[in-house]
Amino acid sequence: MTNMSFTNLSDTAIHQALLRHARTANTHSGFHLGSLLTGDRVRGSEIPIGGGMRLNYAANYFNTETLQLLQELARAQQVVSKFVNLTNGAIMNTGENRTVLHHRTRNRQHVDNFYQQQLQRIDKFVAKVHSQEIVGSTNQAFEEVVQIGIGGSHLGPETLYLALSDWAVGAKSPRHMEAKFIANVDPDDAASVITSCNLARTLFAVVSKSGTTDETSANEKIVRAALEAAGLDPAKHIVAVTSETSPMAKSSDYLDSFYIDDSIGGRFSSTSAVGGLLLSLCFGTEVFERLLDGAHEADQLAMRDCITGNAALMKALLDVFSCSYLSYNTLAVLPYNKALRRFPAHLQQLIMESNGKSVNRYGEVIHYPTSPVVLGEEGTNYQHSFGQYIHQGTSKIFVDFIAFAKSQLGDDLEVNGSTNQERLLGNLIAQIVAMAKGSENTVDPNQHFPGGIPSSLIYGEQLNPEALGALLAFYENATTFTGFILNLNSYDQPGVELGKILTKSILNNTSEDPAILALRELFDF
Amino acid sequence: MTNMSFTNLSDTAIHQALLRHARTANTHSGFHLGSLLTGDRVRGSEIPIGGGMRLNYAANYFNTETLQLLQELARAQQVVSKFVNLTNGAIMNTGENRTVLHHRTRNRQHVDNFYQQQLQRIDKFVAKVHSQEIVGSTNQAFEEVVQIGIGGSHLGPETLYLALSDWAVGAKSPRHMEAKFIANVDPDDAASVITSCNLARTLFAVVSKSGTTDETSANEKIVRAALEAAGLDPAKHIVAVTSETSPMAKSSDYLDSFYIDDSIGGRFSSTSAVGGLLLSLCFGTEVFERLLDGAHEADQLAMRDCITGNAALMKALLDVFSCSYLSYNTLAVLPYNKALRRFPAHLQQLIMESNGKSVNRYGEVIHYPTSPVVLGEEGTNYQHSFGQYIHQGTSKIFVDFIAFAKSQLGDDLEVNGSTNQERLLGNLIAQIVAMAKGSENTVDPNQHFPGGIPSSLIYGEQLNPEALGALLAFYENATTFTGFILNLNSYDQPGVELGKILTKSILNNTSEDPAILALRELFDF
Repeated sequence: MTNMSFTNLSDTAIHQALLRHARTANTHSGFHLGSLLTGDRVRGSEIPIGGGMRLNYAANYFNTETLQLLQELARAQQVVSKFVNLTNGAIMNTGENRTVLHHRTRNRQHVDNFYQQQLQRIDKFVAKVHSQEIVGSTNQAFEEVVQIGIGGSHLGPETLYLALSDWAVGAKSPRHMEAKFIANVDPDDAASVITSCNLARTLFAVVSKSGTTDETSANEKIVRAALEAAGLDPAKHIVAVTSETSPMAKSSDYLDSFYIDDSIGGRFSSTSAVGGLLLSLCFGTEVFERLLDGAHEADQLAMRDCITGNAALMKALLDVFSCSYLSYNTLAVLPYNKALRRFPAHLQQLIMESNGKSVNRYGEVIHYPTSPVVLGEEGTNYQHSFGQYIHQGTSKIFVDFIAFAKSQLGDDLEVNGSTNQERLLGNLIAQIVAMAKGSENTVDPNQHFPGGIPSSLIYGEQLNPEALGALLAFYENATTFTGFILNLNSYDQPGVELGKILTKSILNNTSEDPAILALRELFDF
Repeated sequence: MTNMSFTNLSDTAIHQALLRHARTANTHSGFHLGSLLTGDRVRGSEIPIGGGMRLNYAANYFNTETLQLLQELARAQQVVSKFVNLTNGAIMNTGENRTVLHHRTRNRQHVDNFYQQQLQRIDKFVAKVHSQEIVGSTNQAFEEVVQIGIGGSHLGPETLYLALSDWAVGAKSPRHMEAKFIANVDPDDAASVITSCNLARTLFAVVSKSGTTDETSANEKIVRAALEAAGLDPAKHIVAVTSETSPMAKSSDYLDSFYIDDSIGGRFSSTSAVGGLLLSLCFGTEVFERLLDGAHEADQLAMRDCITGNAALMKALLDVFSCSYLSYNTLAVLPYNKALRRFPAHLQQLIMESNGKSVNRYGEVIHYPTSPVVLGEEGTNYQHSFGQYIHQGTSKIFVDFIAFAKSQLGDDLEVNGSTNQERLLGNLIAQIVAMAKGSENTVDPNQHFPGGIPSSLIYGEQLNPEALGALLAFYENATTFTGFILNLNSYDQPGVELGKILTKSILNNTSEDPAILALRELFDF
């Protein structure tokens, strides 16, 4: 493996040059985004992502000098060689002394790796469920799967499930089972899902790496009680996805168990058994494998050591330039695609939990902005919601647009001279250009659009399993690269610990903090 | 009416004092949030909102001097008297020369006002649908209602529908019909909803004030084509919610039409016919009227001219103090409540579209931060997603917590010594205190929680129709008050116009902008 050195962004040789360079952005002496966005620049700013997806980065702040500086930054921070080391098993989650191996979940050539073995076990299990060799405790076939999990065990799998639901219909690919999710400890979450299910035909998948996630454990017990109350045997209706060392592992309480390990972080676990079991049950293992192949292709492309040939690296560098140098502290993720409506929520976790940190890889305080805040809604809907803010608000937002040339279902109609797909793409392109170029109005400031709002376009022909896998891996890899550039450990989440400790002290009645006691009084609790 | 003067925040007499005061926040010489959060402060920081809801503002930055300064600011900007004038019909949407009358939609004492007349018409129509006096074109009863609308015609109604769905089950209140929504021009949006419906039993409500919203008009035509293809008469399956001057009004193309007017802004329209028809069809008019009564009570309480007695005013002032003086530019809305899962999306529109502006009421450029960026997810889920960022990220986020003592369905189980409702509230309280107080760790910065993160708690006994109406009105009124304090017109959205113009030029093929043409090439469009 390449020797690695870890340096704060602010201590790199290139940092001062980037700060100086950033001061020229959007000035006439430097580079003005609206003027730079030419047709040639659009055509010349393309990088393949994998799975048929592409990044077009034309509408970001950059000129030739920017790209030179960012390439130097990537070399200085050894971004690609650290990534190669990571995939080869270097301990990159240094604080927790763990390797980071989610890429192996989609490297299907390595048939003998642990994750591929689990995938083969899932394939066999799913085949038996679909063939009704495995049925519920009253011998009825399983029609629904309910995933019980929170955070990474919920957001990624839910996002991917919704992303493929209409695709399967449009592509006439089987939809074997429907999926539902129980995540929250709000008792109404479990109660409403349980009520909506025909329990005799429902398979539950409890997903927790540690096997001790409080919310998941509580919801599992509620589900067990409901199954028993319905005269069903919970051990024949619940499978586990956990680590081999967890209290849930190899227990006769479960119909079967599938494994991950400490090298798979929750927010990076969608392509492991955490997402794989659910997606295979719903769409078939072959569809999940197509998703894995798209992700693997994106992983391979992310190893290119040249920023104009590596989409995830270019994205990470441009994002760091926007956040840490141009003071854009909010990223709006805007999929012009109904099926990706939960993708912004997944990226909120992936990006904000990975890089929303104020200390470096060694736990030392750093003094530069790290992750942006992430929000998002589907387009065109957001245009009628917070679109006003992006164009004319006082906080600086940069944007990711995600779009596809074709819809998933293919049903459309020409209305008033355009199909809805044309209308969707017309709105998308109008937003990219309106944000970049703005529109000057010296008479009425209310109708003045300053422009200069940078955006990236991530696009493909159609949202199919390969495209989805590549899209997911692209963002995972860009997040990893951003962490390397910023010198963070992107794989821990120490910020959640204090809340856990206080919650425990409240539920155990051991807290005597007067504020806590007074807040409990408000709820008679 | 009181005479009104309009002054930029930065030109008020109190502005410099607030700037100086803000500099003392979170310092030992000034006020430190963690130290201030005592039991007595929690008990003493309560204001009724209406509908049984309360605001507890204890965990915000303030001391006695802050409240004095903010009270002076409220007087200087004539916040309450402007609000009274607004409800009395002053032209407060000055740029568009319109009154702002959404409060009259919930003032049921005024039986002869236009909006109450529409409500009475809705009541009669809904009764006929429920009694099957009005049926579909093949004489089958209506079981589903699909609202076709975008922005304010979608987000508010969808949010309220989801908020009451489990409540109706738990309260054994009738659920007459199910609701679905078509908003996006993504062709898969209309296609998937249409496929999921039994069209012979489906009523569509097309909602557009102008009657010319491009997305809504296109989706309506797609629905008409689908009804015709199914051998049904669209005129017997579609109702309109629009203004009396729109092309949709009084047309025989619709089964019936219900009206709003230019005094009802889209994002403030949930309590008008825009939300009223849908919610009455689903839950009964009497449930919608309970929601209106909760909203009306909140409106009445918002007229109190004293910040410690007016929850919406206190919220607006503390938010402005956080955003414009303490540099918190992001608001995380965290409902510890599954049923409110879409409420953050509604507030994104309400707050960011109303106050996400850089010019004042007269269209003059201003030089202070206006609206925060708004994001949110349900708790406890967000704790496993972007919770890390709030506690330890580099961007300053302030928080609204929303919670209820009781769940809606009432099904719960004690697991490991606690019910899930207790677990939910325990996590909530832990987050409030962890954010405010943090936890010092001088040895390991990775385990250091700086704290000092301000939050508001909006809470009640249970999320029922009155509580929901009050919650909605509370945020609407706080948004209005914030606009008055910042000297904005909160009722227009000029920032959406440029995108509309460019979209039209693309769909008409009249744009020759080389960037637009090159972007079209990417999609073969």
